[in-house]
Amino acid sequence: MAIGVFDSGIGGLTVASAIKQHHPNQQIIYFGDTAHLPYGEKSADHIKRYIKAISAFLFSNGCDQLVVACNSASSVLDDMEALPNFSSITNVIDPVINAIQKHRTIKRVGVIGTKRTIDSGVYVERLKARRPDLEVHTLATPLLAPMIEEGFIRNDIAKHTIHEYLSELPEVDALILGCTHYPLIKNEINAFFGGDVQLFDAPELVAQSLHVNQANNSKDGVDVFYVSDHTSSFEETAHRFFGSSLRLRKSDLFEY
Amino acid sequence: MAIGVFDSGIGGLTVASAIKQHHPNQQIIYFGDTAHLPYGEKSADHIKRYIKAISAFLFSNGCDQLVVACNSASSVLDDMEALPNFSSITNVIDPVINAIQKHRTIKRVGVIGTKRTIDSGVYVERLKARRPDLEVHTLATPLLAPMIEEGFIRNDIAKHTIHEYLSELPEVDALILGCTHYPLIKNEINAFFGGDVQLFDAPELVAQSLHVNQANNSKDGVDVFYVSDHTSSFEETAHRFFGSSLRLRKSDLFEY
Repeated sequence: MAIGVFDSGIGGLTVASAIKQHHPNQQIIYFGDTAHLPYGEKSADHIKRYIKAISAFLFSNGCDQLVVACNSASSVLDDMEALPNFSSITNVIDPVINAIQKHRTIKRVGVIGTKRTIDSGVYVERLKARRPDLEVHTLATPLLAPMIEEGFIRNDIAKHTIHEYLSELPEVDALILGCTHYPLIKNEINAFFGGDVQLFDAPELVAQSLHVNQANNSKDGVDVFYVSDHTSSFEETAHRFFGSSLRLRKSDLFEY
Repeated sequence: MAIGVFDSGIGGLTVASAIKQHHPNQQIIYFGDTAHLPYGEKSADHIKRYIKAISAFLFSNGCDQLVVACNSASSVLDDMEALPNFSSITNVIDPVINAIQKHRTIKRVGVIGTKRTIDSGVYVERLKARRPDLEVHTLATPLLAPMIEEGFIRNDIAKHTIHEYLSELPEVDALILGCTHYPLIKNEINAFFGGDVQLFDAPELVAQSLHVNQANNSKDGVDVFYVSDHTSSFEETAHRFFGSSLRLRKSDLFEY
């Protein structure tokens, strides 16, 4: 049985890549909903439709576990009717919340993400539920994901944009990278803080939290990468993470 | 008969607004394909499908003229099979090319736009066909559209991003704003050049190029604004251009 991983674009590849490192023989079926990229600017109603269609597709293609590798999508999951009968559904928010809960020395946490994720209030709500003593500061950083989708743009623009955004955060002990694109600029964010702020992102934590059946670990199936629209930007990043022999398959899930 | 105007998002509103100023009694039916926003990152194949579906929708809703108010969409139009039988189809590229052709004193032209528009080579090809003597410099500025969609982000980021991009252009006499979002930062671009570079954008030129039948100019119909996904970002900008009494209609053209 395969693990199904999906995102609107390249962000989820950071999660898929970490899963592959932890469970090298586990087959992954990835779905990049590039026809609707980016989710950060879509309505909750539409994102729910896309989740429903994609999870049905992954289930019918033999996935028994689902990883929703997008924060915008993860933030609306609780509010949805039943999805297909996966043995587990993992979002990219709760593994990070669990990790923060264990670090009792952390008193002040920052969260950055898309407008949709930050406006949903999901991080504040879940952090406060577990650690009412936490001071939580959120900040929408909507340009970071398009900047990363475009290959970081030029260095000066990236550096300045990161600097401008993060300068607005009050002093924190830890920062949650609340978008699966952001691990791709983790070094730059770390450099801004001079290494003084502990960074939490989803890929490693999600990979660790998955219970992979050893019976699945038999290198039976090759990984498959579906996209709803074929874009060179997605292909380049997919090759960077999974090697140039990877071939994208165009899904007709959202064709007219 | 109405004029149908469409774009993936808010950019086309700059064109619709200019049409309204030139032809105040002409009914406009606008379609913002917010479910697939932004087009700059979609494949040519998918953009063609969207154009086909939206133009059929606008035609069947009583539009006799079509304005493709998006450069990414305009750049693939020539390569498409027949669209519905509109009395005219206007793109946002040719009116600008025509205007440049008339300014014989212009010798060096810059063009900025999305990656898709710049990579298509459409501006260079059409400018050179009319004025082989022109020196043309193109530059993809992919972060500008998302920056504008997000409400210019913070001033410092906007200013720095504009500065970084435009600094890469060689010296030019004129600059084509090759994306219908860019008129929204025309002042900032003008400020960068200290007013020394003549800026060309589509909205005014498209509005002037339309032949509006006086029989249409009877204030019969109210303007109608359709979106394929309801987003607060689109609604806010639509209100800014067309007043707060405007109500968006959700189209089910791209529902599953």
